[in-house]
Amino acid sequence: MLTPAEAEERILAAMPPAAAEDCPLAEAQGRVLRSGLRADRDLPPFDRATMDGYALRTSALAAGGRSFRIEAVQPAGQPARALGSAADACIEIMTGAPLPAGADAVVPYEETEREGEVMTVAPGLALAPGNAIHRRGSDHRAGEIVVPAGIRLSGREIAVAAACGCPTVVVSRLPAIAVVASGDELVEVTAPVADHQIRRSNDYALRAALVLAGYPRVERFHSRDEPAALADLLRRVLAEFDVVLLTGGVSRGRFDLIPAELERQGVRKILHGVAQRPGKPLWFGVGDRRQPVFALPGNPVSAYLCLHRYVLPALAASAGLTPGPRPRVPLAERFVFRPKLARFLPVRLRAGPGGGQEAVPVPGNTSGDFAGLVGTDGFVELPAGTDEFPAGWLAPFWPWS
Amino acid sequence: MLTPAEAEERILAAMPPAAAEDCPLAEAQGRVLRSGLRADRDLPPFDRATMDGYALRTSALAAGGRSFRIEAVQPAGQPARALGSAADACIEIMTGAPLPAGADAVVPYEETEREGEVMTVAPGLALAPGNAIHRRGSDHRAGEIVVPAGIRLSGREIAVAAACGCPTVVVSRLPAIAVVASGDELVEVTAPVADHQIRRSNDYALRAALVLAGYPRVERFHSRDEPAALADLLRRVLAEFDVVLLTGGVSRGRFDLIPAELERQGVRKILHGVAQRPGKPLWFGVGDRRQPVFALPGNPVSAYLCLHRYVLPALAASAGLTPGPRPRVPLAERFVFRPKLARFLPVRLRAGPGGGQEAVPVPGNTSGDFAGLVGTDGFVELPAGTDEFPAGWLAPFWPWS
Repeated sequence: MLTPAEAEERILAAMPPAAAEDCPLAEAQGRVLRSGLRADRDLPPFDRATMDGYALRTSALAAGGRSFRIEAVQPAGQPARALGSAADACIEIMTGAPLPAGADAVVPYEETEREGEVMTVAPGLALAPGNAIHRRGSDHRAGEIVVPAGIRLSGREIAVAAACGCPTVVVSRLPAIAVVASGDELVEVTAPVADHQIRRSNDYALRAALVLAGYPRVERFHSRDEPAALADLLRRVLAEFDVVLLTGGVSRGRFDLIPAELERQGVRKILHGVAQRPGKPLWFGVGDRRQPVFALPGNPVSAYLCLHRYVLPALAASAGLTPGPRPRVPLAERFVFRPKLARFLPVRLRAGPGGGQEAVPVPGNTSGDFAGLVGTDGFVELPAGTDEFPAGWLAPFWPWS
Repeated sequence: MLTPAEAEERILAAMPPAAAEDCPLAEAQGRVLRSGLRADRDLPPFDRATMDGYALRTSALAAGGRSFRIEAVQPAGQPARALGSAADACIEIMTGAPLPAGADAVVPYEETEREGEVMTVAPGLALAPGNAIHRRGSDHRAGEIVVPAGIRLSGREIAVAAACGCPTVVVSRLPAIAVVASGDELVEVTAPVADHQIRRSNDYALRAALVLAGYPRVERFHSRDEPAALADLLRRVLAEFDVVLLTGGVSRGRFDLIPAELERQGVRKILHGVAQRPGKPLWFGVGDRRQPVFALPGNPVSAYLCLHRYVLPALAASAGLTPGPRPRVPLAERFVFRPKLARFLPVRLRAGPGGGQEAVPVPGNTSGDFAGLVGTDGFVELPAGTDEFPAGWLAPFWPWS
């Protein structure tokens, strides 16, 4: 059986790259940038005052000048003025304004006193050229890449795009994702429920986690364990969606029809079964339009873990997101796990004795329901081949979305 | 001057609690739950098979029985059958199905062989009562609170709500937030830009960060440094929005009109100035409808840091989110900061020598632009009163939204 890392590698290799599209800046938060952002001019575009005060020549200060004549005001949003040639000339200047020609520093209000049109600096004040000035081009030169492709856009990168004059950015298209819950025992939350039935919750959980992870185009479906209805529904979602997630129906019971029906409909199996608990029956294949199909176990916790361990990284790879290193968190206490399988262990993060974060195992029932995951922050992966993991062991950590 | 902690305390004390409203489950991800979710029946609602296999009596196995007659099939979604009274009776059972009356365990397929209607268990197999069964009520009893109020809803809690039969949940109303960028030097990204002008980016950054943090109702405005226009715009946003964020115009330059105009319009000042760099001129007040008004510095990095340090925690408190402990991350290298102010230091997280995360300072230009924040993950707060912070010092960490 494949290890989780091997399964992940096969899945990532099979993921088709998402198409790119233009997106208006005001809708771009959370989208993955596909084309790096270049500065269209120097950043900052001019020598800019970073404090309110007076623009002057530091040479005049160095020569012992203490009193300066205030010649003018330099507000933000107006072209740079020019400082008079007299050594004691200064111009009052506002934060964000361009430095007047001839001046080389700004002395902030706090270091000055003013009487009428004469400003006096504090006794003993020395000022280096460039004081309280954000120099033209000191962040970036025109033409340089300021934001590389392959990142998820947040406030700061969107602000850079705005500063660089990009009203739209090139991002990965959002996949349309179908989530199909299967099982005769499932009823919708609004319907009456009999003693032997349970309400649909997997599809709600997967959809919400996908939306929170930045994939809002998710539709939920339900299939009964009836071959013709299942075949129809699979045909429809394979035709209409970019990614298909199924839950339930992938283990070996008599009513588990999904893998066979998928292969009948031209979905090529890439893997079935991973040496992990929970989530062993995981199935993954690729449809005839290269659309990825994940058949997750029906067990709620398994499906949710597999979504975070495999589906979200696969979607990120498809979007062109540059993967970062997986964070590691020390276990807060010893954990023993004997089966020859990797263990996905839900954890709660807390401040450890040294103050850094540590992971408290919340093993619950591996076949349990979502109630057991409330209050957890994610899960760690404990590899097969070791029975006992001591407190302090650094475990790779997957946060919940 | 106030410390950051004192400023935060005053802000939190002044925040009005958000109203509560019903929200359909399919739109509830990211919303803050205001009323705890109760189990409407036991969870799980019946003794449920967690594997495919055969339901039987463990007493029969303990007495040496190895072969069992398969009486029937118990699929998921059908009422529980009853096991015949013969010791060698068993019922084939599917994952998710209710345990037949009389049976007390499930033996998985893997441990059995089958010939016709006779199943034989593996030699030496011992089985405890409850094997491969998720017991009725073992997660929660009917009537118990399963998800407490005060948390942000993600996939797992929404799934619990679905399982408990809640098609809607009670959540905090999302505030309508106005973001007003002020300054004559600012032009919109789509407009031509002169050498001495800069493009609006603060309002894009703040809006995107707010949306990503779960507050999608954000509108951007621009005000020139002109008293009548500013007064009109402030009147409008104070009337129409629940929260007002302003950037620029709060330091002491001649054109910094905002604090005076806010007070003229009945916004009561709670604080002006915090002993921090950057962000010292921060202003906060409360309007006559209790609406919070944050006047952030115009400097992009300052505004963005103050959003994360004060505004997002204040919105979370208003929504009723139970605050967790602030994570702490060790500094990857020594950092020296002499002024008697708290320092907000942007950092990049990376795996440290022990494998846990550490924070690499990215000091940049404290008056810098957003370009300097690209590639950072958040910021740490270094308190005033210490000049030198050694490598390994555990710093409170605020992630970017």
